[in-house]
Amino acid sequence: MDKFSSSELIYFVDLAGTFVFAVSGWLLASKKELDFFGAAVISFITAVGGGTLRDVLIGSTPVGWMQDINYLLIIASAMLATVFFKRIFEKLRRTMFLFDSIGIGLFTILGVQKTLGLGLSPVVAIMMGTISAVFGGVLRDTLVNEIPLIFRREVYATVCVAGGTTYWLLGETSLNDELRVIITIGLTITIRILAVVNNWTFKAVK
Amino acid sequence: MDKFSSSELIYFVDLAGTFVFAVSGWLLASKKELDFFGAAVISFITAVGGGTLRDVLIGSTPVGWMQDINYLLIIASAMLATVFFKRIFEKLRRTMFLFDSIGIGLFTILGVQKTLGLGLSPVVAIMMGTISAVFGGVLRDTLVNEIPLIFRREVYATVCVAGGTTYWLLGETSLNDELRVIITIGLTITIRILAVVNNWTFKAVK
Amino acid sequence: MDKFSSSELIYFVDLAGTFVFAVSGWLLASKKELDFFGAAVISFITAVGGGTLRDVLIGSTPVGWMQDINYLLIIASAMLATVFFKRIFEKLRRTMFLFDSIGIGLFTILGVQKTLGLGLSPVVAIMMGTISAVFGGVLRDTLVNEIPLIFRREVYATVCVAGGTTYWLLGETSLNDELRVIITIGLTITIRILAVVNNWTFKAVK
Repeated sequence: MDKFSSSELIYFVDLAGTFVFAVSGWLLASKKELDFFGAAVISFITAVGGGTLRDVLIGSTPVGWMQDINYLLIIASAMLATVFFKRIFEKLRRTMFLFDSIGIGLFTILGVQKTLGLGLSPVVAIMMGTISAVFGGVLRDTLVNEIPLIFRREVYATVCVAGGTTYWLLGETSLNDELRVIITIGLTITIRILAVVNNWTFKAVK
Repeated sequence: MDKFSSSELIYFVDLAGTFVFAVSGWLLASKKELDFFGAAVISFITAVGGGTLRDVLIGSTPVGWMQDINYLLIIASAMLATVFFKRIFEKLRRTMFLFDSIGIGLFTILGVQKTLGLGLSPVVAIMMGTISAVFGGVLRDTLVNEIPLIFRREVYATVCVAGGTTYWLLGETSLNDELRVIITIGLTITIRILAVVNNWTFKAVK
Repeated sequence: MDKFSSSELIYFVDLAGTFVFAVSGWLLASKKELDFFGAAVISFITAVGGGTLRDVLIGSTPVGWMQDINYLLIIASAMLATVFFKRIFEKLRRTMFLFDSIGIGLFTILGVQKTLGLGLSPVVAIMMGTISAVFGGVLRDTLVNEIPLIFRREVYATVCVAGGTTYWLLGETSLNDELRVIITIGLTITIRILAVVNNWTFKAVK
């Protein structure tokens, strides 16, 4: 299992990704004028929704965040931080975008690792990685009653599929885990920046 | 496990809560002019949705209502009763409100018990208790395409968090289980009545 | 377990049903002008959503399609086929309707089999069979933000309940599995055709 073990680096950035996702959930909730409780729920679901669905589907229950109190603590911190420093977060769009890109890259990698660790096929692992990364956002949008952005004009999920595939392919080489993670994250960020700069979109299916 | 065992009292009021939730689901469905089948689905989901999500998340499957036919029987009775005595139920708003308050209190307690019984942390247990109590209603509202009430102006879930926390804290004392249940339910009802009477709401997050 | 084992016939028609459901998902997605990725997600969810929910609820995880790559292959084929032969599929409405009817009949039977195989009660088995057959479509409609058709004017699910009940009752006789399947599917198709021809609907609950 050495091959798919996560390092402390991954754990740290996983928490950072959770933080950023919780912030993004709270920001959307406040736009929609939800009350405090509703905002907390949306924030929480955005942060852990993807990993939760992955764990339920592959049968890894009780789901991950229940077994490590740090996830709840980091989400609570994100909520508090957003309440007090909301303007700063809104100004930090670029930094947030960067962290968000790192976050989805990491969530993808964690999902791929966990699924491969159960002996399931690489295709399923890449799908579960992508779900880990994007489903929190899908739930968030669905709960506030919008067609999820991801179904309209985002290359968001495609980035995850590319990242997950890369990470898995690198696993067939002799590269160590840290390098695989760094290359995958780097690729994720690069694709997202290129997509935004060039305004890449998919055409609607006709 | 003595500490978290449920008494016959809890089982009885759990069935009563299930009944009330099934009635409330049917009443909403008939407002929305769903057909018979749709109303049955909404009614069923309102009644068992919360416990089902809890069981799936903590990995207690097959989920609870599958393993005790009484839940299905009580829901079927609730549907029949609502069809035949709809006007009475609509007039009994206060009684329904009381039963509903007892119901969410009980569902919260059951969720807390079941989760603590798996060795998960109290915070997670209180969250699972709250989900048990409120998620059926969230699903009901989402399926008929409304932003769930709970995200807009209810203190509903806060009542569950308060109830779950109280029940857990009382578990650290030497009180017996019946007394803990009664105190928790009493608190739940009191908060809800105070909230309605005083028109308590949370402010929208800005 | 002989009594509830599936034959190669069932497996084949299960894949055929998966194919038809994936096609129907893609066709709806293209009406809604979703992009390529969104259409793929909707198509996939329509095809496996029902079986996935069933497996999660009864605790049969990792869920079914993860453990047999043929389901992913058949869905990918369906997507490709719909992209290239969209007009043909739209003209083949009657054939699609027939396959769809066979599909929901089969999905119902598979759900009943799997649930009974876990020792759960026949009522639960029929519910799980129905969920297997219809929940993919419910998810599809919910994700593109419509009140699911099934809650409005379809006899769709009723067909599944009838089929599931028939299949279970036949299991109490000495009929062999192939005959039970054929009779159940025949009944499913007959009811659906009669319903469409006669424009059967349920009245809204008042």
